[in-house]
Amino acid sequence: MLDITFPIIQAPMAGGIISPAFVAAVSNYGCLGSLAAGGLSLDTLARQIEEVRFRAARPYAVNIFAHQRTPEVPDNITAVNDALNDIRRILNIPEVTDIQFSSEPSIEDYAAFCIKMNVPVVSFTFGCPDKQLILQLKDAGIQVIGTATNVKEALIIEEHGMDYVTVQGYEAGGHQGGFLKQPSIGLISLIPQAADAVSIPVIAAGGIADRRGIAAAKMLGADYVQIGTRFLNTYESSAHPLHKEAINNADETAAVVTTAITGKSARGIRNKLMQQPAVPYPLMNQMTADIRAAAKVQNNSEYMSNWSGQNIRSAETIALHVLLDELTNTEQPDFQ
Amino acid sequence: MLDITFPIIQAPMAGGIISPAFVAAVSNYGCLGSLAAGGLSLDTLARQIEEVRFRAARPYAVNIFAHQRTPEVPDNITAVNDALNDIRRILNIPEVTDIQFSSEPSIEDYAAFCIKMNVPVVSFTFGCPDKQLILQLKDAGIQVIGTATNVKEALIIEEHGMDYVTVQGYEAGGHQGGFLKQPSIGLISLIPQAADAVSIPVIAAGGIADRRGIAAAKMLGADYVQIGTRFLNTYESSAHPLHKEAINNADETAAVVTTAITGKSARGIRNKLMQQPAVPYPLMNQMTADIRAAAKVQNNSEYMSNWSGQNIRSAETIALHVLLDELTNTEQPDFQ
Repeated sequence: MLDITFPIIQAPMAGGIISPAFVAAVSNYGCLGSLAAGGLSLDTLARQIEEVRFRAARPYAVNIFAHQRTPEVPDNITAVNDALNDIRRILNIPEVTDIQFSSEPSIEDYAAFCIKMNVPVVSFTFGCPDKQLILQLKDAGIQVIGTATNVKEALIIEEHGMDYVTVQGYEAGGHQGGFLKQPSIGLISLIPQAADAVSIPVIAAGGIADRRGIAAAKMLGADYVQIGTRFLNTYESSAHPLHKEAINNADETAAVVTTAITGKSARGIRNKLMQQPAVPYPLMNQMTADIRAAAKVQNNSEYMSNWSGQNIRSAETIALHVLLDELTNTEQPDFQ
Repeated sequence: MLDITFPIIQAPMAGGIISPAFVAAVSNYGCLGSLAAGGLSLDTLARQIEEVRFRAARPYAVNIFAHQRTPEVPDNITAVNDALNDIRRILNIPEVTDIQFSSEPSIEDYAAFCIKMNVPVVSFTFGCPDKQLILQLKDAGIQVIGTATNVKEALIIEEHGMDYVTVQGYEAGGHQGGFLKQPSIGLISLIPQAADAVSIPVIAAGGIADRRGIAAAKMLGADYVQIGTRFLNTYESSAHPLHKEAINNADETAAVVTTAITGKSARGIRNKLMQQPAVPYPLMNQMTADIRAAAKVQNNSEYMSNWSGQNIRSAETIALHVLLDELTNTEQPDFQ
């Protein structure tokens, strides 16, 4: 149903890691590129979508964070900020005494904007929007993807009328994109259980790094795969060079799950920014933003968010076109 | 190299779950049955091996726990015992005031015994024995399997001269069988990274429940698969009926990792026995033994160890021969 040549989706990665040109290159190759709207103003998102449309003749996706927009500010916020001020002193950046949170566009605003911009595919993470909003997108001809980290969530996504479900395993880099508080499920268990439970196509995500993983996901019942870390670790991605270096120097045990960086569970290369206490997302994400920005400028990878999945033992940074050729090389269907 | 017809190993499961007759039935079918020596005296192990040999004309394995035999007794042992006494009062069994630990045969004793009994295959979990001991087993014509939960451990196992490595993923039911303190790796990531790193054959374990999982593991680079929960959940296994019922009634999010039952990380169906503080294995395993035994007699599944992997959404108890027919049905190689 997705009008793509190869059943491969480039995972949406927020925080400026993937440029519109990158998304366009992936889509033009015949895979599905994904822009991450999370954290972007509607103006910035408009410019990014326009650039993708200008550069790409093929479908692309826009990913929307569908989390609860107004979390309660918890009691421990001052203690958390004090711990972050310790880090700010290490980095020689201004301490924060008056904690302010910025608002972000609502899910409805982002969705209406995607309709207005004729976006071909919209994916959601961190939540399942209500049926009315999903219906509006579908009525506008948009294909809609939900993100599940267990079968319960996949069933909710199907019941809400979405066209596809991404099932994201424990192995995945970056944020766990589900919405029910449950332990993660390993992908080799999650795919067949989800494929048995839902009728909509299944996109498998997490720990898939090469043709072997793609072939295995297909065997297990997936219709598509979504890959993140391999795309991040290309010369063309905008991830910080030390982020790529951290992945290349790590082994399979170094990419661990933390809530300390953004307030939501996310997997990245172990560093000092994973050590302080946290408040829930999106509060923590905003509270660490100045620290992570300074760490990038100062080339200090201990205080960046070096997201990565678990399949990185042989990681090396390569060119995007080399990666796409490798992932789509059907002369190596099964690595037997 | 293993002289079996199908590349399927029945996972060793301690605690009386798998009888010698069960092991023999699996081996006679053409898969590899496994006896678990952990917790057995040498006399009991002798009787079990003799029964397997009497019943089976094919290879079988004996699994040895290779953990450190004399752990330090930690400071919190009284607090832990107090919490267990609360449970003992609930179950109306005698409280423990004088905590005693029994000793178990050494790794060397078990290994020498396997040589004496002409056991064809010996597997190790919870540790990697020294090279001398592995060499003794191999010199006696025994094939030796090690258990790794990450690639680092797999490399150590290969370097120590073992013939095979079982790579056990995060999804696995029961105990994590590795020996370095590291986070678990999802199997879809672990298999290809291990297969790339070692030259010895790879046995994939964790979350594999059907032909799809077997085909996927093979695609990812595994030579054999090891399956536990499906074998446990047969009419012929000696697992408690309420253990099987707990698996059949659970979904994929209910099998969680705890150290509270035995002192080592193990995955089972969430229950009340997972809530008290713990001391390290094997101390905690011994301290909860009376509680688990009483819970079985009283049919109280809240205080049993209901080990299970994550691939259980469609679980049902079936006959062993039906399971073996299903797992080896090569007319369904890939479920496409």
